[in-house]
Amino acid sequence: MKIAAIIGSSRVDGNTQQLTEMALEGLEYTPIILKEKQITPIDDLRHADGGFQPVADDYDRVIDMVLEHDILIFATPVYWYGMSGLMKNFVDRWSQSLRDSRFEFKRKMSQKKAYVVTCGGDQPKIKALPLIQQFQHIFEFIGMSFQEYIIGTANAPHDILKDEQAIAEAKRWNETFSSLK
Amino acid sequence: MKIAAIIGSSRVDGNTQQLTEMALEGLEYTPIILKEKQITPIDDLRHADGGFQPVADDYDRVIDMVLEHDILIFATPVYWYGMSGLMKNFVDRWSQSLRDSRFEFKRKMSQKKAYVVTCGGDQPKIKALPLIQQFQHIFEFIGMSFQEYIIGTANAPHDILKDEQAIAEAKRWNETFSSLK
Amino acid sequence: MKIAAIIGSSRVDGNTQQLTEMALEGLEYTPIILKEKQITPIDDLRHADGGFQPVADDYDRVIDMVLEHDILIFATPVYWYGMSGLMKNFVDRWSQSLRDSRFEFKRKMSQKKAYVVTCGGDQPKIKALPLIQQFQHIFEFIGMSFQEYIIGTANAPHDILKDEQAIAEAKRWNETFSSLK
Amino acid sequence: MKIAAIIGSSRVDGNTQQLTEMALEGLEYTPIILKEKQITPIDDLRHADGGFQPVADDYDRVIDMVLEHDILIFATPVYWYGMSGLMKNFVDRWSQSLRDSRFEFKRKMSQKKAYVVTCGGDQPKIKALPLIQQFQHIFEFIGMSFQEYIIGTANAPHDILKDEQAIAEAKRWNETFSSLK
Repeated sequence: MKIAAIIGSSRVDGNTQQLTEMALEGLEYTPIILKEKQITPIDDLRHADGGFQPVADDYDRVIDMVLEHDILIFATPVYWYGMSGLMKNFVDRWSQSLRDSRFEFKRKMSQKKAYVVTCGGDQPKIKALPLIQQFQHIFEFIGMSFQEYIIGTANAPHDILKDEQAIAEAKRWNETFSSLK
Repeated sequence: MKIAAIIGSSRVDGNTQQLTEMALEGLEYTPIILKEKQITPIDDLRHADGGFQPVADDYDRVIDMVLEHDILIFATPVYWYGMSGLMKNFVDRWSQSLRDSRFEFKRKMSQKKAYVVTCGGDQPKIKALPLIQQFQHIFEFIGMSFQEYIIGTANAPHDILKDEQAIAEAKRWNETFSSLK
Repeated sequence: MKIAAIIGSSRVDGNTQQLTEMALEGLEYTPIILKEKQITPIDDLRHADGGFQPVADDYDRVIDMVLEHDILIFATPVYWYGMSGLMKNFVDRWSQSLRDSRFEFKRKMSQKKAYVVTCGGDQPKIKALPLIQQFQHIFEFIGMSFQEYIIGTANAPHDILKDEQAIAEAKRWNETFSSLK
Repeated sequence: MKIAAIIGSSRVDGNTQQLTEMALEGLEYTPIILKEKQITPIDDLRHADGGFQPVADDYDRVIDMVLEHDILIFATPVYWYGMSGLMKNFVDRWSQSLRDSRFEFKRKMSQKKAYVVTCGGDQPKIKALPLIQQFQHIFEFIGMSFQEYIIGTANAPHDILKDEQAIAEAKRWNETFSSLK
């Protein structure tokens, strides 16, 4: 079981990343830091003559990496009660991959297991629930099984260390991941 | 009452834009087409020394325009059960404006009235509800009053013309807007 | 196409009922007024020896009526941001019907079309969205197709007459229902 | 700090009750078993001459008990993706208490801390989120602070013992409650 953590934070070493790293401590995994990639917003050419056009950015390489893994952890801070724009731009581009015959995108994605880690400062355990529901719709569409999510309460750097519930969850995930072959 | 329509589509003349234009037919308003602007994802420097840094893109000019209006229509297609990455990048940057003393951002935004128009192809009247809830949290945080929303069902170009409910709503909005001084 | 309106109001001629009647004006339909029925809360005997026991109330007769119709309109006021207890007690009892060999409950219910009408006083177009999502889960479980919903804003008697959007929707439904054979 | 657990299960010793008891192990608390009480659905007389009328059931005594406590744990199974009809009938009657001068209901309720425990069998960690959102709206209206919630996955009796996450949460609550004076 190969694990990738897709990190949508715009801040280095933020709470979401820290919490994700707790869940993955001691394990081999591929961090995919979206902030370090150039991924442009989708240009919706679904209905244009010729369809989508190749885009000169890092998206295809990111998808190649993603597709090599079995477990995908979507780690995004709660920005304005949703996923970060970095993460959203990445997901929006899936519409292009769905139509890209090189990838067998949907078939391959449907075999993966999805996890979500998200941290926010304003009552996220309530106000990030629409985000969890959105991820559920996303995963359902693409056929990926939505395993679990952790919502952490954190605002300033390292706040997450005070959220006992989130930490306990991350440790439990760590045990689960460790027990997988 | 000055009206701005903030358009988050990545497709020119898409269903969301078409529906928004129905709501605004015959009225004076400012279209703000995010696709035509360069707005980079937020670089979260809230907790960094020196805080946020000036960004050489169109965001500040867009905010200047936005702040001159009383009614803001957020028009975004439903992409992956949420707002488009273009729209999300724009909203994410509000975190920067909140800390930018030039703007009095929160005070001014809290005097505006918000409307949402969104169109999607996969049962949006159910599956876009988390997006509406997200907008509610956004507007509540910034203090803007969330007036109304229209969710249209549309996938291929001009599909929206078949959604009688959405069209009736847009016409009703048009009457409301027309009656405002 | 036979239509039943299942009314969960505890108030006679409340806004929800009035709005439902607008949608059904001039049409033949069966009103099922839950307030006039004796339906006791479910006694969860799924895991008990012998399973569910017959209950001496009106529930079975109500289900018999329900099953004779093709279109079911679930009409409930928003009470405390959810369906009324009267409506909830009725739905809870479906767990019993699912295990009652007399009914072929799930197979028959899965052939019906569901509509929801609900009215509330405290920002229902936002705060009743969890109720719509709940109905979606309910209908999905039972296999019924969730056609449409109307959320009306109304508190005091006849307030609904001031909600132009809800009235326009009800009239559109009326046209749709009228055109069905 | 006096604790009451308001149990909405219709099954004796169900998973929700068991999980709630784990959270309260070794602590003094008042169990309020709604199934053992006679609480009739609300008769909405808000707009009738004379307003609400006294109801000859157990509701007033239950409210008297509830009001004596500082921490309220709302424990309900997920029935049809919402709270049980038993719990809903109880909450619906709050509309009556709000207008009952004997109680100072809203003022007293607004001083309490609310917790929610709920267990369901069909992906409750996703599909019970509308229920959590509903409770949030309820508590916000009444002015109660919504502290935390646990969603357990359980269907057959004692299934909850297999939900490590829920058990860890219950134990953490137990420590929190134990540390309160």
